[in-house]
Amino acid sequence: MDKVATTLQSVNTPAILVDLDIARRNIQRFQAYADGHGLKVRPHIKTHKLPALAEMQLRAGAVGITCQKVSEAEAMVAGSLEIRDVLITYNILGREKLEHLAALARKVTLGVVADNETVIDGLSAAFAAEPAPLRVLVECNTGADRCGVPTPEAAATLAQRIAKAPGLVFGGLMTYPPANGAAAVESFMTRAKVFLEAAGIAVPVITSGGTPSMMHAAEAPVTTEYRPGTYVYNDRSLVSRGVCGWEDCALTVLATVVSVPAANRAIIDAGSKALTSDLLGLTGYGHVLTRDDIAIDQLSEEHGRLVSEGPINLKVGDKLRIVPNHACVVTNMVDAVNVIEQGEISGVWPVAARGRIV
Amino acid sequence: MDKVATTLQSVNTPAILVDLDIARRNIQRFQAYADGHGLKVRPHIKTHKLPALAEMQLRAGAVGITCQKVSEAEAMVAGSLEIRDVLITYNILGREKLEHLAALARKVTLGVVADNETVIDGLSAAFAAEPAPLRVLVECNTGADRCGVPTPEAAATLAQRIAKAPGLVFGGLMTYPPANGAAAVESFMTRAKVFLEAAGIAVPVITSGGTPSMMHAAEAPVTTEYRPGTYVYNDRSLVSRGVCGWEDCALTVLATVVSVPAANRAIIDAGSKALTSDLLGLTGYGHVLTRDDIAIDQLSEEHGRLVSEGPINLKVGDKLRIVPNHACVVTNMVDAVNVIEQGEISGVWPVAARGRIV
Repeated sequence: MDKVATTLQSVNTPAILVDLDIARRNIQRFQAYADGHGLKVRPHIKTHKLPALAEMQLRAGAVGITCQKVSEAEAMVAGSLEIRDVLITYNILGREKLEHLAALARKVTLGVVADNETVIDGLSAAFAAEPAPLRVLVECNTGADRCGVPTPEAAATLAQRIAKAPGLVFGGLMTYPPANGAAAVESFMTRAKVFLEAAGIAVPVITSGGTPSMMHAAEAPVTTEYRPGTYVYNDRSLVSRGVCGWEDCALTVLATVVSVPAANRAIIDAGSKALTSDLLGLTGYGHVLTRDDIAIDQLSEEHGRLVSEGPINLKVGDKLRIVPNHACVVTNMVDAVNVIEQGEISGVWPVAARGRIV
Repeated sequence: MDKVATTLQSVNTPAILVDLDIARRNIQRFQAYADGHGLKVRPHIKTHKLPALAEMQLRAGAVGITCQKVSEAEAMVAGSLEIRDVLITYNILGREKLEHLAALARKVTLGVVADNETVIDGLSAAFAAEPAPLRVLVECNTGADRCGVPTPEAAATLAQRIAKAPGLVFGGLMTYPPANGAAAVESFMTRAKVFLEAAGIAVPVITSGGTPSMMHAAEAPVTTEYRPGTYVYNDRSLVSRGVCGWEDCALTVLATVVSVPAANRAIIDAGSKALTSDLLGLTGYGHVLTRDDIAIDQLSEEHGRLVSEGPINLKVGDKLRIVPNHACVVTNMVDAVNVIEQGEISGVWPVAARGRIV
């Protein structure tokens, strides 16, 4: 069975553990790659939602942070004086959000994205009377089929609208690419850049993201900036893609066996409220460290069901460490995480930007 | 497109809406059924996590509430003076949890469950010196294959251990049954009761639960008490099982269309941080009210992707109301819900027991 460190035996479970030594190594690994290829790093903080980890990323060389929502950015900026440059990679709409955005722009260097005219017009109306213009990047669909303008021509058209809009400046091009999307990014962004430069509009930033393909970011040399998120913690989905190993997973869920009702079945006190139902294409809800023979085949909110083909060899009270399928969503479930340094718990950190959905 | 009430147009999205009129109707419907069959009702508060809604359930006739974890029970008891009787349907283990449990037992009438000797021995050690004994029910596996002793004989054996343990009293039998499990519950519990009564041990309570089969609870007449949870809100999974209609769904997610990047695709500002990834066997992540032609085919944390076979006929800024697959897990994502009465927002209620996982 899993050898959970003695120091973890007394932790009230379920608990989220974050190993800072592993996180630091993960941060440094990608920063070194990016530095070697002349790429700026702007980590997405959705994975950790912790101002102190953003500071670790900035001190390693990141140029700023990425957030997904205005309230998330507010929580991060409120939590650290070192966070001075924020890109919100989201279409911001609505009076209340725009007021908060304007207030935030008075505090830090701020950028947002837009993929349609309605958003641009709203941003322009909100910033026309502000002391400084807002930087707006055009979000481009390079194949992930989520948000984003569909063609380089459409990107150029929207960029021109931003460039002409009162209160706004055109900040560049942004995409969240599909897996292995470097070639698609290179092709789309190069063409969009040509159109824009022909129209006399410079493209200061071309920013891409995504942990799975981050070590191939330089295969799209038109890119100037990269926004990895999950890389700081890693998770089962990234191990399954061959991107990292279990020893690179900084976030784990500590759980206690509460029942062993059959020879090949055990129940732990971590269910979907800790591990979440995210599958990311996988089977099962997480990996029990050192127990490759166990599958977590079913979750309810407070129960995780572990099954094994042979005897499960667990007893009530045993503690297990589980690598979740998706680290980012686990962070969002809890008010605080237990921080580990050199194998010992060194602190309990509130998850400052948890639950910031607006 | 969905006709979202004018009063909801100004709500900052995504937002969780709880229609109290519908919730009240749902509560009264099951209470009337239970009253008609001589069944006590002990609602599981995991669905709403709101002391005020527990009060509505108690005033309608519930005998107490059900919680899943000690911290959840603490939050509910702290939130309402009317909550005086709590059953925690979970194996409680570990020094810290047992201390909290003992403190809670000094405040309210408390029961817990156990399905193994380790848990019983821990409870006994924690309560041996307490002023009043703790009521412990035996959890029985009637086919759901989660926790629970496997046979009526094993239930009787464990009940006898509880009856003899210092600081504990045997409180009865508990199960979370499989779908359509009334016959299995009746068979298991009747046999366990015979064994126990033959040993001179009375069985004061036999408690079952689950919303999907709740209107068939009386088909297991050995049952004395029922613990429905989701019935207060209902959700897409219950509509798909034919248990209720969309008009019975009290909890909805209000979202704004932030992008319409293709003729048959739109993106809303509610992703897995609002709707969650729970599928409960369904395809897609929720139902857009009044738009049966739309599927929510993909979620990322802050984006929901809507697709339609024909033109999607949505524009950026449109607001939609979505019935999630699973209401209980949505409640756990947010710090507060917007309460609706008579079609108007009448309050913003903090979700007192959100995120209480220990």
